[in-house]
Amino acid sequence: MASNTVRAAVQTGPGAIELRDLPRPRTGDDDGLLRIEANGLCGSDLETFHGRVPMRGGYPVVPGHEPLGIIEEIGDAAAERWGVQPGDRVALEVLVPCRACLLCLSGRYMSCKHRKATHGYTPVDRAPGLWGGLAGYVYLHPNAVLHKVRGDLPPEIAVMYNPLGAGVRWTSHLGQVGLGDTVLILGAGQRGILSAAAAKAAGAGTVIMTGLASDAHKLALAREFGADHTIVVDEEDTVARVTEITDGELADVVLEMTPLAAQPLDDALRAVRHGGRIVVAGLKGGTKIPLDSDLVVNKALTLVGAYGVDSRGYAEAIRILESGRFPFARLHTHTFELADTVKALNVLAGEVPGEQAVHVAVRPAG
Amino acid sequence: MASNTVRAAVQTGPGAIELRDLPRPRTGDDDGLLRIEANGLCGSDLETFHGRVPMRGGYPVVPGHEPLGIIEEIGDAAAERWGVQPGDRVALEVLVPCRACLLCLSGRYMSCKHRKATHGYTPVDRAPGLWGGLAGYVYLHPNAVLHKVRGDLPPEIAVMYNPLGAGVRWTSHLGQVGLGDTVLILGAGQRGILSAAAAKAAGAGTVIMTGLASDAHKLALAREFGADHTIVVDEEDTVARVTEITDGELADVVLEMTPLAAQPLDDALRAVRHGGRIVVAGLKGGTKIPLDSDLVVNKALTLVGAYGVDSRGYAEAIRILESGRFPFARLHTHTFELADTVKALNVLAGEVPGEQAVHVAVRPAG
Amino acid sequence: MASNTVRAAVQTGPGAIELRDLPRPRTGDDDGLLRIEANGLCGSDLETFHGRVPMRGGYPVVPGHEPLGIIEEIGDAAAERWGVQPGDRVALEVLVPCRACLLCLSGRYMSCKHRKATHGYTPVDRAPGLWGGLAGYVYLHPNAVLHKVRGDLPPEIAVMYNPLGAGVRWTSHLGQVGLGDTVLILGAGQRGILSAAAAKAAGAGTVIMTGLASDAHKLALAREFGADHTIVVDEEDTVARVTEITDGELADVVLEMTPLAAQPLDDALRAVRHGGRIVVAGLKGGTKIPLDSDLVVNKALTLVGAYGVDSRGYAEAIRILESGRFPFARLHTHTFELADTVKALNVLAGEVPGEQAVHVAVRPAG
Amino acid sequence: MASNTVRAAVQTGPGAIELRDLPRPRTGDDDGLLRIEANGLCGSDLETFHGRVPMRGGYPVVPGHEPLGIIEEIGDAAAERWGVQPGDRVALEVLVPCRACLLCLSGRYMSCKHRKATHGYTPVDRAPGLWGGLAGYVYLHPNAVLHKVRGDLPPEIAVMYNPLGAGVRWTSHLGQVGLGDTVLILGAGQRGILSAAAAKAAGAGTVIMTGLASDAHKLALAREFGADHTIVVDEEDTVARVTEITDGELADVVLEMTPLAAQPLDDALRAVRHGGRIVVAGLKGGTKIPLDSDLVVNKALTLVGAYGVDSRGYAEAIRILESGRFPFARLHTHTFELADTVKALNVLAGEVPGEQAVHVAVRPAG
Repeated sequence: MASNTVRAAVQTGPGAIELRDLPRPRTGDDDGLLRIEANGLCGSDLETFHGRVPMRGGYPVVPGHEPLGIIEEIGDAAAERWGVQPGDRVALEVLVPCRACLLCLSGRYMSCKHRKATHGYTPVDRAPGLWGGLAGYVYLHPNAVLHKVRGDLPPEIAVMYNPLGAGVRWTSHLGQVGLGDTVLILGAGQRGILSAAAAKAAGAGTVIMTGLASDAHKLALAREFGADHTIVVDEEDTVARVTEITDGELADVVLEMTPLAAQPLDDALRAVRHGGRIVVAGLKGGTKIPLDSDLVVNKALTLVGAYGVDSRGYAEAIRILESGRFPFARLHTHTFELADTVKALNVLAGEVPGEQAVHVAVRPAG
Repeated sequence: MASNTVRAAVQTGPGAIELRDLPRPRTGDDDGLLRIEANGLCGSDLETFHGRVPMRGGYPVVPGHEPLGIIEEIGDAAAERWGVQPGDRVALEVLVPCRACLLCLSGRYMSCKHRKATHGYTPVDRAPGLWGGLAGYVYLHPNAVLHKVRGDLPPEIAVMYNPLGAGVRWTSHLGQVGLGDTVLILGAGQRGILSAAAAKAAGAGTVIMTGLASDAHKLALAREFGADHTIVVDEEDTVARVTEITDGELADVVLEMTPLAAQPLDDALRAVRHGGRIVVAGLKGGTKIPLDSDLVVNKALTLVGAYGVDSRGYAEAIRILESGRFPFARLHTHTFELADTVKALNVLAGEVPGEQAVHVAVRPAG
Repeated sequence: MASNTVRAAVQTGPGAIELRDLPRPRTGDDDGLLRIEANGLCGSDLETFHGRVPMRGGYPVVPGHEPLGIIEEIGDAAAERWGVQPGDRVALEVLVPCRACLLCLSGRYMSCKHRKATHGYTPVDRAPGLWGGLAGYVYLHPNAVLHKVRGDLPPEIAVMYNPLGAGVRWTSHLGQVGLGDTVLILGAGQRGILSAAAAKAAGAGTVIMTGLASDAHKLALAREFGADHTIVVDEEDTVARVTEITDGELADVVLEMTPLAAQPLDDALRAVRHGGRIVVAGLKGGTKIPLDSDLVVNKALTLVGAYGVDSRGYAEAIRILESGRFPFARLHTHTFELADTVKALNVLAGEVPGEQAVHVAVRPAG
Repeated sequence: MASNTVRAAVQTGPGAIELRDLPRPRTGDDDGLLRIEANGLCGSDLETFHGRVPMRGGYPVVPGHEPLGIIEEIGDAAAERWGVQPGDRVALEVLVPCRACLLCLSGRYMSCKHRKATHGYTPVDRAPGLWGGLAGYVYLHPNAVLHKVRGDLPPEIAVMYNPLGAGVRWTSHLGQVGLGDTVLILGAGQRGILSAAAAKAAGAGTVIMTGLASDAHKLALAREFGADHTIVVDEEDTVARVTEITDGELADVVLEMTPLAAQPLDDALRAVRHGGRIVVAGLKGGTKIPLDSDLVVNKALTLVGAYGVDSRGYAEAIRILESGRFPFARLHTHTFELADTVKALNVLAGEVPGEQAVHVAVRPAG
């Protein structure tokens, strides 16, 4: 008999996460329950854990916006709508859109202002409470968006649908990377490395990635995921190196994904070719960045904000994961149990001596 | 007190429509009921009335896929989702999509294979039965798509959201009509005439419209809606006239919307310029049309199938109707009561001597 | 017999323009000579006149990058290439591209790095010297790009091909203005006003234009060219007013064209809707502008640099001018003889008391 | 001392090719001479050799529209324009466009109506006569379009820039192949096989290729170039097999490149998914093909004519060749001397017993 409660990591305020047993949601014809196999962690989780990015709906919250799991309960209407059965493995998108506004109807549901929930951010006091991936189960709202994933992939790899989905959307869709293009990726986190893979999958010719000297292990890994050149930004001048590597042609597409730093955006404007594209993904904490906007005009540039990932991005990412084209297992560095969620976050943050984290996942016991 | 029944035109088989009193749907938190002000009729209604296009779900059916009405009942969840209140006027899209499949999520919900209903085509035996616009009320399914329309427009004009929506999508979105373009519209029905208006609204320079000699009144009307030139196809050679009018430059965009005729598609291929676009909207009853496909290759043409209208098309159409830029009242020729639905169809078909119909609407008493 | 010399305004250094008689070019099979009817002036002419923007090729230079004229001499090869005859009126594009690089071959010749000349900027010492529109004649290089213009338009209106071409490209092509869109234009110069017209021609629903209190005459004029609302930026808050006018929906497209001011770019980021587009046209003199780049990410914005105008833009502009749809004559405020070029520039700069200039043209005697 | 004559294969009429010594062109500041290393042959060469496709300009003609060679003579202006030096290896595009019309200026120069020459098709009597690749040298007209190719590739591979350029443009540009897409290629010639490679390079997930039972060697080769499945059309039903392979999802993109056959176009319409794209490349000799155009409408299809290849296509193809990603050497089956041009054509046509040709090139002695 199924337990009436579900073990969950619950964030009660900035910096405070504890295990709790929350009521197990009752499901009906139109919704379901997903048993979590793994939930990936990324920089956003650090921001919300420490309270630098507020939980808008208040506390307590079950964090975790990258859930992967197995369908445990599913109503008939929901099963028909999603085309899934109990036992199927699915990836769950972060947003639960309204599905009714003009944005939802035109394929831009990531921007829906009437969203029903945001996994990992909607508070426990909104019924049925289990809105995050750091728990034994996550509730499947009727409006949830999910994708089937082949069951034979290791869960630590399958859960990369989330950062690789970003890589696909940011490079291929927003960056419009073309055959043989030179792509410059500013920032060597897990999303940066998977963006290199996504760019290569979309036909990029040359991928250049930047990172800090302290990111040496990530830059080395990036080369296994398609980066042809790496630049250590605290030792080399990015624009000068890109100029040298490209024989003065500069980059066709730049993906700027360095958080809280002003210099990369300036580098992006100068390292991109005339007529090129810059995908802006790195949030700067609301700080105003001094930018030479004349470069946008005189170089005929296009800048695109990397807001969210859509279903096409996730679907294409899953197909790349299933193809086994890249050594995904090497990207995954750490797996933790639910009880060790805070440790998982600290490892990801690089705050645990001796641990060099790239991709970190939590695997609840279920 | 509201009546327990709703008066509806019910099609029981090919060529057979009768008035019936159907049970009034009970609505809840998530759905609603729309009091019909007007329902427009078009060529598709003639096809289904006579059974030339089958009702796939079987009979009986309440026809009418162009409903306009006033919100009579609305649940709280539905009101919030759609942003409407009782008393608001809305236009109702023909499809009720699943809102969950990849097509729905990517803005192509018109192609949804899991649709919940199709207004005017879903049979009465699917609860709650009132699925068509030729009735006092139409049921508002939770997945229905609707658009607010300003209340001070005459209903006969407001209901043109449907054919004008087609005109907007087919010329502006699919045809990509640009500033100063020459647009050739093959077929002078209400959709053709409103496509002329839509093309001009999108910046077309020259609009040429074809019709039969017996369409003289429609071609005259077309000139009031933006057509600069008209061609009488049973008296003139279309390609020769387009060549003459454009000084040999031919048309940038051709909208082919003549049902059941092979010649217009051939004309389209020959009257479009090298590199031009042809929007194919006219259904040919499944007949194979002999086409010189080498013209597609050698003229570097793009052909696009005009399948359905999306929310953006309807929204833009409603803005044009509200702008009053064209003499829409002159397009509307006939209004009928619900009891005269068959007569309305016969007038639209041109089978009633002395009546020259262009836009025909049925206005149920409610 | 034709004179051996051509009268030209020659800029010898910052702030210094004098009349000179330059050798009349000899033309051959592949080139030609254009008798100038009118040359428009714009803000760029002020920048180069005062030396704030340097003449890269050095002095002396015949200024004038907006030439309109009559073909006086034309070689057989050139006549065939351009499809023109002596006596034809043509507009001359500013750039003389190489026509051989990958940019030229892919339709982006405005960005050609191997350009042969730039009208109004190439110095007199590059043979045959007559490279600017402020002269009796301008040389037609074999690689020049020109457009036929109907001869019956007044030259003061025909010469507006240049600023209207910018309006067409910046709003319709780069801004992708759609039917019913709300367009915000920041800056009420001649290009801003003609951008309002271009936006309306492309189907814009609502056009909002900003200007200074001292631009009152321009804002009044803007309303005749399609602006539905005007905002006086030194008296009103732009973002608050746009929010009010659009009922909180904000602008679909923003065209930022205010030179040397930081605030409009900040306004653009805040007054554009989620998912909207900003066309950046206003140069800031290389100054770094503090920008909240997180808005680009979180609002899913696209920014596009407005670099140059292409042939399609000019061709569409000429069709709009020929259509007579807008009261172009009212935009033109001043005509000067060649000898009064400096006065023309001062009037345009607003430095001549009592003169309120919008569109200013110089008409050489020929 | 250079000889005053150049050995060339000269076609004097349908089916008649002979060797002649033609005058060696004198070059000047603006043009050049290319020493041919190799010239590829394709199906079009068979059509023109046998006269089934007429030489529009009349005879005699030096055939060969796929030239690759070494710059032998180059004027200073030409060297600067093209960025080449004597000794550089370049690929030469088939068309010599006017570079002045609106099509040329907007990146669609392949459609230029005022072209200066077409390599392999312009007759000898247009000076300087050497317009084709089946000769020791080909003339480099000032308007010619050429691309540098790395010198260390075997010429038989470097000359594949031409068919691979078609593959890139037809799949990636016109077909808009996306990450993970299923691409169906109808026709297993050299262009079909290289289109499979181009599709995979652009991120295609699954490539399916059709051919005849007699094409078994080509279908086997196709698998080395990215085809995941092959269909033998005289033994299997294409649509049924595609349905089976894709689990009913059908193809995202279909490339129809079978000459003179009606069935493949019908297959394309039925094997493509709702909302999919069909690139039409196979010419049918002007025969009208009976097509169910309702499928275009009801499946919301886009059909695009594959007319020519642009510079971007060739440039991307050269980058793929240089990457060595595919086993290009295995595609090349036959090399012939200039004197054996007719034999080369017969081998390509499959008319020489015992020879199974895929890619055939002629290498003039120079």
